[in-house]
Amino acid sequence: MAGQFITFEGGEGAGKTTQAKMLADALEKVGVETILTREPGGTFGAESIRKLVLEGTDDRWSGMTELLLMYAARLDHVEKLIKPALQRGAWVISDRFSDSSLAYQGYARDLGADRVRSVHDVVMEGFNPDLTLVFDMDVYLSLKRVETRAAQDDEVLTRFDKAGQAFHTTIREAYLDIAKNEPARVKVVDADGSRQAVHSRILNALTAKYPEFAGKLGGA
Amino acid sequence: MAGQFITFEGGEGAGKTTQAKMLADALEKVGVETILTREPGGTFGAESIRKLVLEGTDDRWSGMTELLLMYAARLDHVEKLIKPALQRGAWVISDRFSDSSLAYQGYARDLGADRVRSVHDVVMEGFNPDLTLVFDMDVYLSLKRVETRAAQDDEVLTRFDKAGQAFHTTIREAYLDIAKNEPARVKVVDADGSRQAVHSRILNALTAKYPEFAGKLGGA
Repeated sequence: MAGQFITFEGGEGAGKTTQAKMLADALEKVGVETILTREPGGTFGAESIRKLVLEGTDDRWSGMTELLLMYAARLDHVEKLIKPALQRGAWVISDRFSDSSLAYQGYARDLGADRVRSVHDVVMEGFNPDLTLVFDMDVYLSLKRVETRAAQDDEVLTRFDKAGQAFHTTIREAYLDIAKNEPARVKVVDADGSRQAVHSRILNALTAKYPEFAGKLGGA
Repeated sequence: MAGQFITFEGGEGAGKTTQAKMLADALEKVGVETILTREPGGTFGAESIRKLVLEGTDDRWSGMTELLLMYAARLDHVEKLIKPALQRGAWVISDRFSDSSLAYQGYARDLGADRVRSVHDVVMEGFNPDLTLVFDMDVYLSLKRVETRAAQDDEVLTRFDKAGQAFHTTIREAYLDIAKNEPARVKVVDADGSRQAVHSRILNALTAKYPEFAGKLGGA
């Protein structure tokens, strides 16, 4: 099978990063070369743009300027890491991709989803994930997780984490809307539960799309 | 009269920066508040993006990634400096603007002019200069000027200056093509001659567009 491009999406604190690693391990165990990456970032050039986007105050960049920076980073990531990996037959799992721009810059920062899609189409010229898993979770629970993680790791909260509950509710609804609009590509996964329970749900979603993995992936 | 947005375009070494200052002085002398700016750069945010674009080796960014970074910087410049100035009635002269992207990224880096125009239209939503002056000059002469300037000022040549004569010829032809396609907005100015001679040509181009200045600007 040709390399497949899978993206993990959803609000903060839904466990995407942990689950991306678990899925990559499961795929490697059945002999699929898997590249794990994330956005914003993923390549040296994209990381340098990421620094520009995340630092500074909330109003440093307008929504559209932020979107262009995100897409510059994304294109570097696609051209230098994602496409070369797919072309040699590897699978790529990215912790966030274009639906993050659609949710955060389009729905939440009132650029409008249509304007974000216009930029996406001009830049990406038809390149899209093969499968996108949206991690869905109660907003209160996910904010509690973000707070706990920040306290444990002495982590500096990024701009996005600092925003309030109303913002996170907007993000959740945005992702559900994106999934409703593109049911063939985007699947919603219930992200509440133990790591192993969520991992099993992800394997089920994957096997539904790629039946050749039925009974092979993980021990679920 | 409402504030007017005037851009100076053309290859390296054609004297745009010097002439932009001379025109700003001439306008100030007849009581027109004039803001002089440049691209890439012009605002703090845009300058930080400029650093990313100009540093590093030639192949650090693909043509499209570079274009997106340029447009992120441009939008910051437009939103935070150019539009507020125009709205209070000031005139703005910018040393380079969107036609530089069209010439350098579109024509010369083979993205194609159409793809650059697609990005421009999505980002700028109809915002364009009122008048663009293209500084046209023999390529050999302009390269000589760049070399002399670099030797005098002990200036580090940027990536664009380093490129060869074929590249500069492409840029010259690109600008002439842009002027041919948009004759109402874009005027070609012969940039060969003394500072005062070129300044007079610019005042003539300005007076042709804004007849209310006839006989008032400068002592030409």
